[in-house]
Amino acid sequence: MPAHPPLRVAVLGCGVVGTQVVRLLTTQASDLASRVGAPLELVGVAVRDADAERDPVVDRALLTTDAESLVERADVVVEVMGGLEPARGLLLRAIAAGASVVTANKALLAQDGPTLYAAADEAGVDIYFEAAVAGAIPIVRPVRESLAGDRVTRVLGIVNGTTNYVLDKMASEGLDLDQAVKEAQALGYAEADPTADVEGYDAAAKAAILASLAFHTRVSIDDVSREGITSLTADDVLWAQRTGHVLKLLAIAERGSVEDADGARVEGVQVRVHPALVPAGHPLASVRGAFNAVFVEAEAAGELMFYGRGAGGEPTASAVLGDVVSVARHRVLGGKGPVESRYAELPVLPATAARTRYQVRLEVADRPGVLAQVAAVLAAHDVSIEAVRQSPASQTPEADVARLVITTHVAPEHALRSTVDAIAGLDVVRRVVSVLRVEGA
Amino acid sequence: MPAHPPLRVAVLGCGVVGTQVVRLLTTQASDLASRVGAPLELVGVAVRDADAERDPVVDRALLTTDAESLVERADVVVEVMGGLEPARGLLLRAIAAGASVVTANKALLAQDGPTLYAAADEAGVDIYFEAAVAGAIPIVRPVRESLAGDRVTRVLGIVNGTTNYVLDKMASEGLDLDQAVKEAQALGYAEADPTADVEGYDAAAKAAILASLAFHTRVSIDDVSREGITSLTADDVLWAQRTGHVLKLLAIAERGSVEDADGARVEGVQVRVHPALVPAGHPLASVRGAFNAVFVEAEAAGELMFYGRGAGGEPTASAVLGDVVSVARHRVLGGKGPVESRYAELPVLPATAARTRYQVRLEVADRPGVLAQVAAVLAAHDVSIEAVRQSPASQTPEADVARLVITTHVAPEHALRSTVDAIAGLDVVRRVVSVLRVEGA
Repeated sequence: MPAHPPLRVAVLGCGVVGTQVVRLLTTQASDLASRVGAPLELVGVAVRDADAERDPVVDRALLTTDAESLVERADVVVEVMGGLEPARGLLLRAIAAGASVVTANKALLAQDGPTLYAAADEAGVDIYFEAAVAGAIPIVRPVRESLAGDRVTRVLGIVNGTTNYVLDKMASEGLDLDQAVKEAQALGYAEADPTADVEGYDAAAKAAILASLAFHTRVSIDDVSREGITSLTADDVLWAQRTGHVLKLLAIAERGSVEDADGARVEGVQVRVHPALVPAGHPLASVRGAFNAVFVEAEAAGELMFYGRGAGGEPTASAVLGDVVSVARHRVLGGKGPVESRYAELPVLPATAARTRYQVRLEVADRPGVLAQVAAVLAAHDVSIEAVRQSPASQTPEADVARLVITTHVAPEHALRSTVDAIAGLDVVRRVVSVLRVEGA
Repeated sequence: MPAHPPLRVAVLGCGVVGTQVVRLLTTQASDLASRVGAPLELVGVAVRDADAERDPVVDRALLTTDAESLVERADVVVEVMGGLEPARGLLLRAIAAGASVVTANKALLAQDGPTLYAAADEAGVDIYFEAAVAGAIPIVRPVRESLAGDRVTRVLGIVNGTTNYVLDKMASEGLDLDQAVKEAQALGYAEADPTADVEGYDAAAKAAILASLAFHTRVSIDDVSREGITSLTADDVLWAQRTGHVLKLLAIAERGSVEDADGARVEGVQVRVHPALVPAGHPLASVRGAFNAVFVEAEAAGELMFYGRGAGGEPTASAVLGDVVSVARHRVLGGKGPVESRYAELPVLPATAARTRYQVRLEVADRPGVLAQVAAVLAAHDVSIEAVRQSPASQTPEADVARLVITTHVAPEHALRSTVDAIAGLDVVRRVVSVLRVEGA
């Protein structure tokens, strides 16, 4: 077989991930050439500031601030700059020029992936994005290829390492949220502005991408109901442990249904991000620190879990390079990767359609009959109780206030919400201390 | 786009997996057609006995005992019959006739995969085999595609559900091996003849396949050093727990090196199957019952784990169908999956080249100075001690016999073996009770 000419690779962005992509393209060049069937020639790295210092060092001659012309002289364009623009414009330009593209840009894909997928499909080139969800963990390829013969029913993911680290610290050291976030910042696990992580935006973007793949349906970040970890207290974490749970920020995408106006069942998908109590024995409960894991339930396959490093330069670069090899092989040997699969066109159901379990902590008057009143409210809303735990006033700081922790069985979110509202309205209830969902049971 | 004509699918074998493949092809027909871009038409199911009862029921009209002619009128041939022949002959015939093939046959691939890979490559068709390793768990595709841009250093797998179930039962209920195997048989987790599982042959086949993929090197089952679980006692399991470990049958494939005759380092891969003590905090330690998990270490990605059901009709059928969709899509849209990657051609190193840790349990004379003598033997062999645990004679059944549990640091297997031999030869050592490797630390 005659040697295939080198494939020209352009990298957009040279931060934590970009420098590692460049390093691997260089140090692994011989292995990569063998796996692709042609050498990969790095033709340029687009940066905003060509004079900034980079670690590992990137050959100054490769750097350019002219990303527009760089993408037009490449066979494969790797986008690791992040943000919506100029990333989107550059990827569309690369695709129009006939390049295959690899991106790690979850925000862009969750916002406007379909535009990119359609452009790539029309141009007959690949768009791959394994690194956009859960860093090094192969999850995009398994969900859209390995499970293509199965019916996914639910995806539960710990897809944000920063919040997982923060919640871990709160649990292991009894820190409150602010202290734990500061520690994460000091170690480089959290950004100076941690909003995208602690408010769940990052997880919501990944949830949208995973839901799209798993359910063959377009889901954008705007379809994801989102609640971050900012309202969680050290006390919540403590109570999670006492009741045999671990608090995690979960990205959840699952099949569900609602009744339409005519009383007919409408099947759809529900996608949400929120903190949840995970039973200590569940595989997700032991995912520690900055690790990520995605738990998938499918009808035939049963329960699957994918675990690994969800962020960081090297792990993310590993996922990017795997995609580079795939798209480069297609250019050498022919063929094309999967295109957007949205044939199912399931409606995205509102947050109130989710079926979940609640753990409700209450401060109540310390007198007989209180539990009976609360239980009656639950029964009236058709919500059944799994467990109740009472602490008498003697064990609480205030003499006349008892504590009640109620865990429900599975019920629709709307029923649970109205139950909590009704409970809060009872005379004997002084305060609803916290309401947390229980998932993964 | 004009509708693509149906793709003809033939299934070879209609046992536990085959019936589920047929069921999914039928019940999921509409989803599969949407994902492939063409309907999948089941043209026949080859069986030995067309009159046997099957659950779920398979349409009698589809059954044929003439597998030879069936494979020649199919676009995609699914082989789930197992065994070397006639599976090999039928797959080669299918490939020669231009069909793409999907197989779950680990024994065949571990023995003679290269013949099949070469035939498929020459014929320009796909051969996919996700179901051959760890059932429903996507591991073949992630290792050969997602990690194609990285350098895998080690694979540690719990890839045999039967032995994992047996070891779990021994640990949780204090059963001895025979009792636990009988329970597994009663529940259908172990075959009437459990040899392939308990002697590690099944795990060795999977180890060979994983090693080939991870290290881009041909590894056959004959290259795998293999030790089953048959020598393990209830006491071994108990001591594992006491020292903070869990006993697992592991399939291990890792990079290593040996010195050649001239004293030069030769890099290679070492592949083995043996019981091992896994630290209780390691992600593999919590893999329970009939579940499987594969832990992968790669230079850039770091630690990854893939977890799920490793056997059973439905989980295996899920993996098979995922492959069917992939190869069918290639027939509709063009392109071809990865071919055998063996460019690295690393030598397969002998078992003695492995670097591991030992936990050695001894019965020794109960008198001062014994530990010093044993420690001196370890030092003389350049093996350093991580931990020692002594039980004085007062805590053992025999008055003058003390127990010693020594855990080493990592050392070459050959050094560890000769150390154990030398220890066994000491006057003060009454008996070497057990020698187990410690992995995953």
